[in-house]
Amino acid sequence: MFNNVTIVGVGLISGSFAIALKQKGFAKNIIGVSRTEASIKKALELGFIDEALPLEEAVAKSDLIYVAIPVDSTIPVMQKIMGLVNDKQIVADAGSTKFALCDALSDHPMRKRFVATHPMWGTEYSGPEAAVKDAFAGRACVICEKEKSDVDAVEIMEKLYRELGMHIIYMEAASHDMHAAYVSHISHITSFALANTVLEKEKEGDKIFELAGGGFESTVRLAKSNPAMWAPIFMQNRENVLDVLNEHISQLRKFKSALEKENMEYLDELMVNANKISKIIK
Amino acid sequence: MFNNVTIVGVGLISGSFAIALKQKGFAKNIIGVSRTEASIKKALELGFIDEALPLEEAVAKSDLIYVAIPVDSTIPVMQKIMGLVNDKQIVADAGSTKFALCDALSDHPMRKRFVATHPMWGTEYSGPEAAVKDAFAGRACVICEKEKSDVDAVEIMEKLYRELGMHIIYMEAASHDMHAAYVSHISHITSFALANTVLEKEKEGDKIFELAGGGFESTVRLAKSNPAMWAPIFMQNRENVLDVLNEHISQLRKFKSALEKENMEYLDELMVNANKISKIIK
Repeated sequence: MFNNVTIVGVGLISGSFAIALKQKGFAKNIIGVSRTEASIKKALELGFIDEALPLEEAVAKSDLIYVAIPVDSTIPVMQKIMGLVNDKQIVADAGSTKFALCDALSDHPMRKRFVATHPMWGTEYSGPEAAVKDAFAGRACVICEKEKSDVDAVEIMEKLYRELGMHIIYMEAASHDMHAAYVSHISHITSFALANTVLEKEKEGDKIFELAGGGFESTVRLAKSNPAMWAPIFMQNRENVLDVLNEHISQLRKFKSALEKENMEYLDELMVNANKISKIIK
Repeated sequence: MFNNVTIVGVGLISGSFAIALKQKGFAKNIIGVSRTEASIKKALELGFIDEALPLEEAVAKSDLIYVAIPVDSTIPVMQKIMGLVNDKQIVADAGSTKFALCDALSDHPMRKRFVATHPMWGTEYSGPEAAVKDAFAGRACVICEKEKSDVDAVEIMEKLYRELGMHIIYMEAASHDMHAAYVSHISHITSFALANTVLEKEKEGDKIFELAGGGFESTVRLAKSNPAMWAPIFMQNRENVLDVLNEHISQLRKFKSALEKENMEYLDELMVNANKISKIIK
């Protein structure tokens, strides 16, 4: 379908996206752009990019430019890209926050060529080696401010994501960021904080290694995530994250209070309420 | 090896244990004991017990009696069983707390026939239907107060668990409970509290369903766990659980403070520290 696709960033998301595009026959040539020489080398070695070029050259020859880098870098890089594209090219991002970026691009003369997307898939790993086949399938992809993008650009991005097995959800950027804080960002904070808790308590680490079962592993898995990716997400989505973090601390305090007062009934009630998640997440 | 093994409780742990005993050829006949008629019926239907008997009759004909019921019920049931066994029979439990039980049995004339064990495996599901093949493998099994049990009884339990693919760790009961609070119990509390947080924020539930990715699912998975099992664990291990819960709240407050002050450096530092868990949990 496309002769040339540029991925800006050659990590988990962009790499997995590139692998999928090739596999589905959507791209003949994939160009990687990254400031990190070692990552470019690795991506070429792994074969999910066909060549590496500086941003300007890559954009000049690409039908689609797909940006998946930390959300604080996305804004200036995207502004640069938007200054380079014509009205046949498509630009999309994969960032976990949408409001700040959409806001920054809202008055850009080429805004219509940009599609704000958030494929809600990921793992705790990062970098080119983290890119995998068959990523994205079964998850939601949020498209924000659809009406500000050209119809052809939106349709192509929808088609790509659907071919990857995603279902599309439309949201306002502010609404996306709020729900993302509730359903994704807070999970990362609780997991980081749980790791710090257990590392503080089990100073030696050997007992964690010896004793940890599947329950601990699954709750602490996200604590392996890359701070360079997550710090900018938390900062850009600060108000929503603080809001849900306050709620979470207050929910933990309820457990604390139930235990302190040895209030078995209240403890049970808190857990019975939490069990309702079974009806939502199978 | 054994003619008759009794499992007291016919749920996740006892059922998976029964399946493994049969599969490994360790037991000819497995007797199920449960106060819940529907569970007995289901266990017979699933075939992991061969017959169901009242506790006294089951114990009378069994070589091994394996108790896996909520930890608050374990103490009175175990005291009853210990009053029924002779010095050829072996009694073991699989409870997630060890101090209260070991303490309650410490002066029992038959204490030596009892082996206090905690196979550190589980899932968020419960009841007979939750029992699975190939459970336990790759996880630790803690044996407490080994020196208070007869050598033959300990050796047999070790052999069974090793055949199931577990590695054995020896601990004092109080030490077990402390480490279990750090490595297992707090994960359950954070997960229950996370579910309550998100259910509070996403009142409709449809957005959770639409948007939730793998990260949320893995951190919230344990919130599906059975309150009837977990409330007694938290209560019996109250002091350790409160201790680690306080630490966890204080770790979350650090994230809150970093975000409130927009202190990117501190936020990054917290996450870099959490990343250390990668070296312990692969």
